[in-house]
Amino acid sequence: MIKKLVIFGVGLIGGSLALALREAGYCQTIVGCSRNAAHLQKAVDLGVIDGFTLNPQEAVQDADMILLAVPMGAMGKLLPQIKQAMPADAILTDAGSTKGSVVAEVERVFGKDFARFVPGHPIAGREMSGVEAAIPDLYANRRVILTPLPYTDPDAVVAVETMWKVTGAVLESMPVELHDQVLAATSHLPHVLAFSLVDTLLNLPMREAIFRYAAGGFRDFTRIASSDPVMWRDICLTNKTAILEMISKLQADLSEFAALIEQQDGEGLHTRMSRAKQARDSYITYLENGKTDK
Amino acid sequence: MIKKLVIFGVGLIGGSLALALREAGYCQTIVGCSRNAAHLQKAVDLGVIDGFTLNPQEAVQDADMILLAVPMGAMGKLLPQIKQAMPADAILTDAGSTKGSVVAEVERVFGKDFARFVPGHPIAGREMSGVEAAIPDLYANRRVILTPLPYTDPDAVVAVETMWKVTGAVLESMPVELHDQVLAATSHLPHVLAFSLVDTLLNLPMREAIFRYAAGGFRDFTRIASSDPVMWRDICLTNKTAILEMISKLQADLSEFAALIEQQDGEGLHTRMSRAKQARDSYITYLENGKTDK
Repeated sequence: MIKKLVIFGVGLIGGSLALALREAGYCQTIVGCSRNAAHLQKAVDLGVIDGFTLNPQEAVQDADMILLAVPMGAMGKLLPQIKQAMPADAILTDAGSTKGSVVAEVERVFGKDFARFVPGHPIAGREMSGVEAAIPDLYANRRVILTPLPYTDPDAVVAVETMWKVTGAVLESMPVELHDQVLAATSHLPHVLAFSLVDTLLNLPMREAIFRYAAGGFRDFTRIASSDPVMWRDICLTNKTAILEMISKLQADLSEFAALIEQQDGEGLHTRMSRAKQARDSYITYLENGKTDK
Repeated sequence: MIKKLVIFGVGLIGGSLALALREAGYCQTIVGCSRNAAHLQKAVDLGVIDGFTLNPQEAVQDADMILLAVPMGAMGKLLPQIKQAMPADAILTDAGSTKGSVVAEVERVFGKDFARFVPGHPIAGREMSGVEAAIPDLYANRRVILTPLPYTDPDAVVAVETMWKVTGAVLESMPVELHDQVLAATSHLPHVLAFSLVDTLLNLPMREAIFRYAAGGFRDFTRIASSDPVMWRDICLTNKTAILEMISKLQADLSEFAALIEQQDGEGLHTRMSRAKQARDSYITYLENGKTDK
């Protein structure tokens, strides 16, 4: 049970958490805080939060759990205000897609051994964003990755785990750096590729024909290019090292592929593509055996 | 009405055409030909074709419509046999994903003004292949692109158009080279990317973690990496120039993207991704207004 949950940034992510916890009766009160009164009022009207304030220091008064669900760019101004007013035993957690950067930011403001911060990343989403898109079962059977530091209080970790479990999520912990590398590979790189593919096609002289003749595969493939550019800009900025590493590896792979085509190496191409097919087919089997996210 | 339709290669593509035409009662007889008697017998058992032969010359006796649905690698041996025995007014057509290479192959065997060949490409498919996967509505509302040459007989073009229209397909014509460029952009490049992405991830040290934590986006994105490697090897070999051009453009785009990340150019990244999102969103609207393939 949480007495007072404060959510900074009541959008899809924060809003869905609130709805899930509300359904389970897990919080006595849920308060929202951001810089947009209209959005926050909307969140109240939709029954997502009980009330709101535009003042971060007021928001965290008497809070026991504080969720940061704001863009990385907002953290710099926000964290000092939270630090000033949050209760000593309150827990601070977040929901961002990259962990290294938020850990660095918290360390910068709170010091290098702030034991009440539990970095977290719920791996869930929808194409739509905003509190209107929030749904209570967004996290059901989805994976939430926590990346506690060596100095993080174990009880704080347990409290954050428990909160997410109430939503139906499956919890995992891993080191900050591994998280950022894995996400760079499995999420950030595909998004960069989808954005780049659409961009490349946009710039072709035969663009009209391309729009007309693009088949279903193109639609699915580029689905993630309809993602929120603000969020993805922030991800690219905050996971810079890991993403650049992934882009570099992919470019090397593409160059090898191109060389095989240039040399008309049918066998080499077949081997490469069979290997990829096999890997992906076993991955799907793995998924269907329930061992990972849908 | 077709008197005798001959299908070389009775798999998903040829088989589905046969089923659609059979449902419409459009052919008096449908005969299959390939080098695999067991597959052909299966096709008969499934009610896809009326009979078969392993002998191409026998197959095309008295045929009025001949469909080539075999891999490009088989064309070299097959075409001379068809040439020897096909009736003078029979029509030859195909269903391959690339047009430049089959046109070149037909020109090589039949001469540079063989007026009975109508190059065609039905833009449809399923993840499964083989005659067991054939379905009569594979082409319903799907686009079929014909790429007649300047010397192709108009009546032959009309006959092939009519045949495909019976299956529910929507017909379009375009020049050979434009077809290959558009397909390189919208289909071949995405497949190359998906194969490369899976390959890159396979070679990472944290491969196990990647399989566990890859979310739904990765699954969709890599779906086309489960495609048939034989077919895709052939596409890469036969559409070499256009595909290499596309890979090159994408590599340049990726390098620009990486540079923006390296320079921490948030605005540049946001602009780029917003542009891609807008383009893709209008593409989806275009699709939903029924102007192109599903």
